[in-house]
Amino acid sequence: MKFTAQLGMGLVSATLLAMSFSAAAQHAFNNADKAVEYRQKALSIMQNNFAVMGDMVKGDIEFDGVIFTERANDFAALSAIPWIGFSQPGAQPGNNTDALPAIWDNWDDFVERAEQLQNDAKALQAAAAAGDQGDIRKAFMAAARNCKGCHDQYKD
Amino acid sequence: MKFTAQLGMGLVSATLLAMSFSAAAQHAFNNADKAVEYRQKALSIMQNNFAVMGDMVKGDIEFDGVIFTERANDFAALSAIPWIGFSQPGAQPGNNTDALPAIWDNWDDFVERAEQLQNDAKALQAAAAAGDQGDIRKAFMAAARNCKGCHDQYKD
Repeated sequence: MKFTAQLGMGLVSATLLAMSFSAAAQHAFNNADKAVEYRQKALSIMQNNFAVMGDMVKGDIEFDGVIFTERANDFAALSAIPWIGFSQPGAQPGNNTDALPAIWDNWDDFVERAEQLQNDAKALQAAAAAGDQGDIRKAFMAAARNCKGCHDQYKD
Repeated sequence: MKFTAQLGMGLVSATLLAMSFSAAAQHAFNNADKAVEYRQKALSIMQNNFAVMGDMVKGDIEFDGVIFTERANDFAALSAIPWIGFSQPGAQPGNNTDALPAIWDNWDDFVERAEQLQNDAKALQAAAAAGDQGDIRKAFMAAARNCKGCHDQYKD
């Protein structure tokens, strides 16, 4: 058993080493700058999904229910992701962020908005799956208003 | 009804305009370079989650079941995200990517590996929720091997 466990750990170490994960590796969960990058990357890919749905809602490109649903699914999956990058120790705004200190001065409000966005994203996902374009537009607008409201309040 | 619909669209347009989404906006779903950025950002935040789980599996930091489960949940949510960035028209490798042309020469294998990673991520998420450290380690290693296998094959 002991041997198997050691062999197991050896394999883990070898695999991790090969993937450049070492004790010295920095990531969003032990480094404030990486936490800033993390949340920016997560929000950026959310925005990409939202933008193409917006193109369809506005009629700038033809509405495609299959594509819209895929993007709504990914937007919903991503909507829970960025927020940990704001709560890591030291991840307050620095030179490489548009996040305003007001976020940390109004943390409960910020968390509430983040949770509301996740609910909005789930509602948009459900509307996309159901396929009624009027409902999809309403759900999209609700999410858009929440994005904008939070940016107005907390983004430089 | 007509008025309401127009008002609705007016609000959508105003909201989108305020958020800098316009017909000219480029995103991962209409621009090859943005698609490359998209997949890189998605894989980067996946790696961040995987790295902190790796720190715990290796014992470089103390195992914390709550944090591990949160990271496993986010890793699972993210595991479906990057792949669309490889399939957008024109998103083949250029100057700003380590993705090898072999991906597109072996597309079915690449897709199969991407799907396997999503299964691995779900298994890791389930193991984390169940809480048995031996099972967690096994599930983590299975995912790590798949990450590494795909990188060896398809990443410069």
